[in-house]
Amino acid sequence: MLAPWRSPLARALHRNRSLPHARYLQLATVRSDHRPANRTVVFRGFRDDTNQLKIVTDARSQKAPQIAHQPWGAACWYFPTTREQFRLAGSLIWVGADCADEPLQQTRTRSWQVLSDAARAQFTWSHPGHPRDETGFQQPPPDPRIPLPHFALLLLDPTEVDHLELRGDPQNRTLYQRDAESNWQAIAVNP
Amino acid sequence: MLAPWRSPLARALHRNRSLPHARYLQLATVRSDHRPANRTVVFRGFRDDTNQLKIVTDARSQKAPQIAHQPWGAACWYFPTTREQFRLAGSLIWVGADCADEPLQQTRTRSWQVLSDAARAQFTWSHPGHPRDETGFQQPPPDPRIPLPHFALLLLDPTEVDHLELRGDPQNRTLYQRDAESNWQAIAVNP
Repeated sequence: MLAPWRSPLARALHRNRSLPHARYLQLATVRSDHRPANRTVVFRGFRDDTNQLKIVTDARSQKAPQIAHQPWGAACWYFPTTREQFRLAGSLIWVGADCADEPLQQTRTRSWQVLSDAARAQFTWSHPGHPRDETGFQQPPPDPRIPLPHFALLLLDPTEVDHLELRGDPQNRTLYQRDAESNWQAIAVNP
Repeated sequence: MLAPWRSPLARALHRNRSLPHARYLQLATVRSDHRPANRTVVFRGFRDDTNQLKIVTDARSQKAPQIAHQPWGAACWYFPTTREQFRLAGSLIWVGADCADEPLQQTRTRSWQVLSDAARAQFTWSHPGHPRDETGFQQPPPDPRIPLPHFALLLLDPTEVDHLELRGDPQNRTLYQRDAESNWQAIAVNP
C-alpha cells in the first residue's frame, strides 16, 4: 500500500522533472567511530509495490561497512523548482551478490540491467577512494545482463518522512510516521 | 590560512552563482540513539579568515541536542551547473546566546544582523516541529540588531574534504585531509 507521503513526493518528482539533479538526494549514515557520513546518491525508483527507495552502490565504497554496523539511513531530498524538502529516515537493506533472498536478488539484477552503459562501466573502475590508478579506467565493458560481484542494491525503507514546503507564508510542514502496525500517521507541524 | 580546497569551492560557488540553491547544502549529524539525521542548511559564508563554514539555526531544533551529544558533522554539497560534489566533515561549534567567547558572540550577532527581514521573522515562529500552531506566525518583527535568545550560529570546521567532479572521463576526485599540525594534504583518489 502506498504511504501517504508518496503522493506529494510523486508530485515533486513530476514538477521538478526538467532538472536531472532532482533525482539526486543526500544519504547520511553513521560510521563505526560514531561520526556521520553523507553523500549524494541517485534515486532509482521504488521497489515494486513497496515504499522502499532503490539506490545502487559499489560494495567497495565506505557505505558498506557503515551500513553493516548501523543499518539506518537519513536521506535529505531538496527539490529546487518547487522549493520543498523531504527528509526520509528508515532502515537500510543491503542487497549484495551474496544475498540469499531470491526476489531481492532479482531486483538487484534488474537494477544492473537498466543502468546506462556509462553507469555500468563505472563499476569496472579501480577501487573507489584508493590512490588514483590511471590504468584502472580502461576495462572492457561489463556484461550488461549479469551484475559485477561488487554491484549492490541498497533499499531505504522509511519509517519517518518530514515534508517541508518553503513556498507559502507561513511554510507548510508535515510529519509522517509509521507505527508498529505499519500504519502511517500524518501531522501538521510548525516549520 | 586558506585550506587548499577553498579555491575549488570558491570556483564552484562562482560558476553556480545563478542558482540560489547552490548555496544550500545537506548537513548530517548523529542522534543520541546513534541514528543519523540530515537536513538542508544555507551556507552563510566563512568565519573571518578561518576555514569554518557559517550556518544559522534555531536552538529549538533537533540539531541542538544532537550536536551537544556528538559535535561532529558531515556536509554534502552538490553543485548542479558544474556537476561536482564537496563532502566536508569536521567538528561543529555551537554558538548560542550563552556562549562566553566574545569574538564568537560578535560573529553570532553579526550573522543575525545580516539576515533578511523574512529570515529573521522565522525565528519568531512557534516551536519548530511541534503540532502546528496557526496563531504562532503573527509575531511582531524582532529587533534587527539583537538576536533572539534561540538564534544560534553553527560553525563547521572541516578536517576532511572530498571533492568529486562528475564531468570528465574518467571523473576527478581529490581528498583533502588536515593533519594534527593543521597542515592540509591533498591526494588524487579513484572516483
